[in-house]
Amino acid sequence: MHVPRRAVVIGGGAAGLGAAGGVKAVDPSAEVTVYTEFEDVAYSPCGIPYVHGGEIESFDKLILAGKQAYVDAGIDVHYETKVNSVDVAGRSVDVAGEGSVPYDSLIIATGFDYADPGVPGADLSGLYYVKNIRRAAEWDKVIAETKRAVVVEASPLGLEMVTALAHRGVETHLVDPHPYALAEMADPDIMAPVQDSWRELGVHMHFNTSLEAFLGDADGKLRAIRTSAGEIPVELAVVATHKTPNNKLAAAAGLQLGSTGGIVVDEGMRTSVAGVWSAGDANEIPHGLTGVPLQGLTGSHAYAQGKVAGANAAGGDRTYRAVYVPWGTPAGKWVIGGASFGETTATALGIPYVLAVGEGISRARYYPGVRPIKVKLLAEPGSLRLIGAQMVGGGEGIKERADFLATAIKFGLTLRDLGSMENVYSPAIGALNEPIVTAANNGLAALAKG
Amino acid sequence: MHVPRRAVVIGGGAAGLGAAGGVKAVDPSAEVTVYTEFEDVAYSPCGIPYVHGGEIESFDKLILAGKQAYVDAGIDVHYETKVNSVDVAGRSVDVAGEGSVPYDSLIIATGFDYADPGVPGADLSGLYYVKNIRRAAEWDKVIAETKRAVVVEASPLGLEMVTALAHRGVETHLVDPHPYALAEMADPDIMAPVQDSWRELGVHMHFNTSLEAFLGDADGKLRAIRTSAGEIPVELAVVATHKTPNNKLAAAAGLQLGSTGGIVVDEGMRTSVAGVWSAGDANEIPHGLTGVPLQGLTGSHAYAQGKVAGANAAGGDRTYRAVYVPWGTPAGKWVIGGASFGETTATALGIPYVLAVGEGISRARYYPGVRPIKVKLLAEPGSLRLIGAQMVGGGEGIKERADFLATAIKFGLTLRDLGSMENVYSPAIGALNEPIVTAANNGLAALAKG
Repeated sequence: MHVPRRAVVIGGGAAGLGAAGGVKAVDPSAEVTVYTEFEDVAYSPCGIPYVHGGEIESFDKLILAGKQAYVDAGIDVHYETKVNSVDVAGRSVDVAGEGSVPYDSLIIATGFDYADPGVPGADLSGLYYVKNIRRAAEWDKVIAETKRAVVVEASPLGLEMVTALAHRGVETHLVDPHPYALAEMADPDIMAPVQDSWRELGVHMHFNTSLEAFLGDADGKLRAIRTSAGEIPVELAVVATHKTPNNKLAAAAGLQLGSTGGIVVDEGMRTSVAGVWSAGDANEIPHGLTGVPLQGLTGSHAYAQGKVAGANAAGGDRTYRAVYVPWGTPAGKWVIGGASFGETTATALGIPYVLAVGEGISRARYYPGVRPIKVKLLAEPGSLRLIGAQMVGGGEGIKERADFLATAIKFGLTLRDLGSMENVYSPAIGALNEPIVTAANNGLAALAKG
Repeated sequence: MHVPRRAVVIGGGAAGLGAAGGVKAVDPSAEVTVYTEFEDVAYSPCGIPYVHGGEIESFDKLILAGKQAYVDAGIDVHYETKVNSVDVAGRSVDVAGEGSVPYDSLIIATGFDYADPGVPGADLSGLYYVKNIRRAAEWDKVIAETKRAVVVEASPLGLEMVTALAHRGVETHLVDPHPYALAEMADPDIMAPVQDSWRELGVHMHFNTSLEAFLGDADGKLRAIRTSAGEIPVELAVVATHKTPNNKLAAAAGLQLGSTGGIVVDEGMRTSVAGVWSAGDANEIPHGLTGVPLQGLTGSHAYAQGKVAGANAAGGDRTYRAVYVPWGTPAGKWVIGGASFGETTATALGIPYVLAVGEGISRARYYPGVRPIKVKLLAEPGSLRLIGAQMVGGGEGIKERADFLATAIKFGLTLRDLGSMENVYSPAIGALNEPIVTAANNGLAALAKG
């Protein structure tokens, strides 16, 4: 008699559902149980800021699949169900209301928490941590009544929420301890036009400014924040601090954690403990060039890791390699993006580089809708191999160029390779000169001059 | 005493002006003379169909630089001036109205002609060969009065002009001897949605149909065309036959021509004759994978070749390598594009391939403006190295993906490399699953099943 293998997945986000599907793809007979603390799975949390901003008309649009779809796929999702602990020796999990549940293979996909702002007043009402779609729908009504709000930290989510609140007509403040927005990953020249566009939208930016406290009224409601630069009266605070790995279960179970607090995995998404795989924001993954562990990547990284973890948990042999991190997001009136790292990170890590910078356009200069694009390439001195890239532009093609540049970095392309690359020229969709090519050739010309 | 070298350029299009600039970049003291038969240089002929279509408001928008810009750059442009012949032994050109003009280096950039339709009636008025901006402005007034027009052949220009005439409300016919549009380079599954969208625009398509004659009235004006499928009454015919190299001067001067009629050049854009370089549509260039000579590439190819030819004519040492041909263009309500070749060409050349096809979307499914994209990849059996790609989509990112895929082909990336590539996920600019990745993985899955 065939006894089906039982796979347990903790977490119902992109990593967890990717893992559940990965198990089924390799072993359709496996019993797959997914535990999530939330009411729903299979929606896009990444879309929440855009509903708040009014670009997307309703939260319903974010639902990707109904619950029946998972039933039909043979994936047993337990909603609003907390896993209390993992017994890796006994290969079981302790589930609230269910007791001990055995597993043959376990996949941890517990995701992230926002870093604790670490200031008084965190228990006040009026603090919004963007995550869950049902809470978001409730907060959306709050936003509709809000006159003044602050976004705490210009993280990727912070950027989106600043823009969204400004679009909604809320007096929007941004407080960040760094000298400019997204300073942990983006360069100041890339962010300058974004900040200009926020200024045009009426956003009040407070950089080099530390949050010191959330201040409440007698009813326990947020009325202001105190910062190193004084008090700012606000009724709503969006806490967009950086993501930290939700590693509580993993730590308690004795899984190896890395320097970021993320779970350490190999290329097969295996943890340090037999029978346990891990995927998504709970992990740390080495950067493809530097080996520096990265944490808090995107939904597409989580999903891809989940598929690999699930496949391998079911007996497959897939790998997920070090990452080159293409990224991109709208910000104010612009779209920013890049791959690997920019000057700020390279400098912080002590990585030498030469620069190649070009300005270009997305269509023929005369074609309606044409928008500027700035491309900045970082290359290894001597070999001129591409090691990083950042861009800011009107929108068109930033995502696709970021994907391309991440692949170019992975495969060792040089500034010379990019400078001689062919490009499509057709007035409505592409200019005579591709901005990546212009940047590469500007860099080569500057190097030739010494 | 320094005697400046004299470079002569024949042709004022993208290749010729690229060459003139290339000379000056290497040798600022060089005397550079450009001869053009036309009244203008430095405008974008590629934009003409979009002015006809109403997307661009006027022909003035297509002017890229004033005549003074060339004077300022030290480039002496002789307008409306015909070069009668080249004496390569004596290193001189015979110029109408100027007599014999000596050169130290000569760059031929004589461009293309439309292939002669080879049928009676080519001398009637009402036949429009899209090329010159001043003629285009005159023809635009004719189009405004035109009720019925035909586009002869669904070439790249033919596609643009069909769409433009339909947008202008002209009853538009398309006559082409092939079974579908752009059949010499695109695959039928890529063109099917384009043809559907033309049908919605009211275009009358006549495929598998040969043009037999232009028929005129007593005043020598076009009144109809005769085809293998009968007569079609039209007042205007846009002759969009394929491009042929304008090789008359080169042939008379004894330069080696290739199988396409294009001038044969090496990687330095040197012709078979010392002291003579050539660039642009007058050349043939080997395909990067097959070595098959290609002719009739784009303005960006012409410009890039011109820069190399000019630099080398001035004593530089630049190379322009075999091409992988990223291409793209709007067509009807879609944008099509690709790199290298598709199934039709691979089959015609006897090149074996495996297919990887994926359907995807340009943004998150729920984000306004999301459009579908179909990606088709051709890979070498066994190695699974990418050898070709074609796409059709709503517009976003086709150009950038075509650039990427051409580079991926050049650098030998495989379906596995593309299947594991990282991609940006951000709802407004990119979907969770990149269509290129989906296509590659679909192909790998199909191969795994045998």
